[in-house]
Amino acid sequence: MRPVITLTTDFGLDDPYVGIMKGVILNIAPDVRLVDLTHQIQPQNILQAALVVKAAYPYFPKGTVHVVVVDPGVGGVRRPMGLKSYDYWFVGPDNGVFTSVIDSQASCYELTTEKYFLKNLSTTFHGRDIFSPVAAWLARGKTLRTFGRKIADPVTLDLPLPKFDGTKISGEIIYVDHFGNLTTNIDAGLLEGVFEHPEKLEVQVGRLTVQGPVSSYSEEKEDAVGIIINSWNALEIFHREGNAAQKLKVKIGTPVSVTQAD
Amino acid sequence: MRPVITLTTDFGLDDPYVGIMKGVILNIAPDVRLVDLTHQIQPQNILQAALVVKAAYPYFPKGTVHVVVVDPGVGGVRRPMGLKSYDYWFVGPDNGVFTSVIDSQASCYELTTEKYFLKNLSTTFHGRDIFSPVAAWLARGKTLRTFGRKIADPVTLDLPLPKFDGTKISGEIIYVDHFGNLTTNIDAGLLEGVFEHPEKLEVQVGRLTVQGPVSSYSEEKEDAVGIIINSWNALEIFHREGNAAQKLKVKIGTPVSVTQAD
Amino acid sequence: MRPVITLTTDFGLDDPYVGIMKGVILNIAPDVRLVDLTHQIQPQNILQAALVVKAAYPYFPKGTVHVVVVDPGVGGVRRPMGLKSYDYWFVGPDNGVFTSVIDSQASCYELTTEKYFLKNLSTTFHGRDIFSPVAAWLARGKTLRTFGRKIADPVTLDLPLPKFDGTKISGEIIYVDHFGNLTTNIDAGLLEGVFEHPEKLEVQVGRLTVQGPVSSYSEEKEDAVGIIINSWNALEIFHREGNAAQKLKVKIGTPVSVTQAD
Repeated sequence: MRPVITLTTDFGLDDPYVGIMKGVILNIAPDVRLVDLTHQIQPQNILQAALVVKAAYPYFPKGTVHVVVVDPGVGGVRRPMGLKSYDYWFVGPDNGVFTSVIDSQASCYELTTEKYFLKNLSTTFHGRDIFSPVAAWLARGKTLRTFGRKIADPVTLDLPLPKFDGTKISGEIIYVDHFGNLTTNIDAGLLEGVFEHPEKLEVQVGRLTVQGPVSSYSEEKEDAVGIIINSWNALEIFHREGNAAQKLKVKIGTPVSVTQAD
Repeated sequence: MRPVITLTTDFGLDDPYVGIMKGVILNIAPDVRLVDLTHQIQPQNILQAALVVKAAYPYFPKGTVHVVVVDPGVGGVRRPMGLKSYDYWFVGPDNGVFTSVIDSQASCYELTTEKYFLKNLSTTFHGRDIFSPVAAWLARGKTLRTFGRKIADPVTLDLPLPKFDGTKISGEIIYVDHFGNLTTNIDAGLLEGVFEHPEKLEVQVGRLTVQGPVSSYSEEKEDAVGIIINSWNALEIFHREGNAAQKLKVKIGTPVSVTQAD
Repeated sequence: MRPVITLTTDFGLDDPYVGIMKGVILNIAPDVRLVDLTHQIQPQNILQAALVVKAAYPYFPKGTVHVVVVDPGVGGVRRPMGLKSYDYWFVGPDNGVFTSVIDSQASCYELTTEKYFLKNLSTTFHGRDIFSPVAAWLARGKTLRTFGRKIADPVTLDLPLPKFDGTKISGEIIYVDHFGNLTTNIDAGLLEGVFEHPEKLEVQVGRLTVQGPVSSYSEEKEDAVGIIINSWNALEIFHREGNAAQKLKVKIGTPVSVTQAD
């Protein structure tokens, strides 16, 4: 067995913080596989981290430990947490970063057993001192119970949800990627559930109205803005061979509405 | 045997896309070694990806699988491709990214056997759904034939080639690195082939004339622009302890000419 | 045994240089674990590299090989070096990047035995041609003696040291991280050594006076600048949920003084 640990942080790539966490992990679990999801979460943007975790975790082998360190409350009253959900483990601060995997089947534990932490615990870098060693011990087969007591009230965020008024779905942009593609909180299942012809929609974003979806980027006209069901099975607004976020001057939170096209 | 898979994309490092590809690979081939070449290819710059692959692939152990996902035509008519060339495998879109390794000894296959792809194939992220699983299965020992039919007409780009008119080599800048060092398409073999004294050349770039090459950066005068045969065995223009691209205000495509110095 | 090799460079992440080094290493030592510390050292900033190495190296398993390539003198008279210090190996240029681990117990060797280098040694990329193969052979168990002769005069930098005049410690900012947090060269041991009440200090930085330290970031008032003993056990100036470097318009080298608060 070669367990996998993924790392998601807002540490950026300029500093040695992520490398130090990997050193701590390899000291405890020398055979573990380490995968970076991203370290470019906007500083202290818990919601962005929650969306990244949601999008990525199920593509990993069952038993993978996902560590998330977006932790503005480090050293304060927020609890360090480990949890098991859908055959995966998650380790990080109890501040909402795990919102998308916390439901009735999840088991959450506060991490309190100091003998598994680094000695000389700092108050500023629990990623190194608590979350990395606990993740490594989980990867080696320890159970969550080893590290502390069960908690019933983990923190969860209100993820923005789309609304349907009988005619129109009102949602918003929740993620802007490196290409400027705009992911909305409106997924394919909802579109199929409420519209008779989900292959023929009209989307309103800012002042722009777009018809679609197309079934591949290259099906859209050159230099045009189009809509597509993307790799996360969500409605996406894109600019063919361009950057939709820049072209439309929109951002996370911009409203998007969808109606049946004529 | 611990096979290696390298990844080269234009995905950047902000999003979890590269991490997701690694999750898919580790699900199929848990022992594979994963190495990032770069994920900072300019969005959809196929030529840049082709040059990076050319520069890097032979430094890896034979049998390494090189995955390249710079794929503006994803989901459209461009073919997904796997190929074997010079004891290495390559997996990615058939759009020219593999130009430098496609010659008469290469065997190219269109990837069509869906049972090796992820279920629920998306039309926007073949890096995750096709290229990662195929690379992982290749690393586990499957042959290219397993995945589809042989193709005789893979897409190749016209790489910019230098010209020699009997006195002067006319080339151009093809790569600008992080330090601002300027790699040309003029290699040491050509200089040795056409000039009697390849250790005494005169290079024209923009309005600047440079004599050289020097045999190490530190041999050049401080704050001066110099020329050197670099680690890719190509003529390079550099600014000692500075950034030549910024100093000379040049970029990819800028003409460079070389003559015998007096 | 699965040895670890860490990599620290100023190569950035746009080019395939780091990936190429990993290919060279995996050719020689296929089982080694590779960890990136950072590749975003400012171009040719040897002091920054020395501080990163100092902060990170002890968190790795004993026997780890730390490779550092910040190497403005590559190909010139500076010596390629390997050294052993406190149960770790270090490989890179003899230019001061290893200042913090060179003391009386360290053994330093010039790397001269070409049969362990790549063939066709370049003069511009010793990271690929010398440091990577030597690190890989060290990870496989070769001794430093294998690669060259012992040297008694390795290059070390004068690290900026704090001064105490009987009342006031005068130090400076030595590191600015991704969050804008400001690490000084004043460590907790010094504060405890010279002040009767190290829990009640007054720090002067630029025109700002700050009282502290607090014991966690969240203990500071919102939007206020505070001081804390950070994860490197050093005095740090931070801006709660903000960026202290931007707010205070300070940088590396800015003076910081500490006195006993009333």
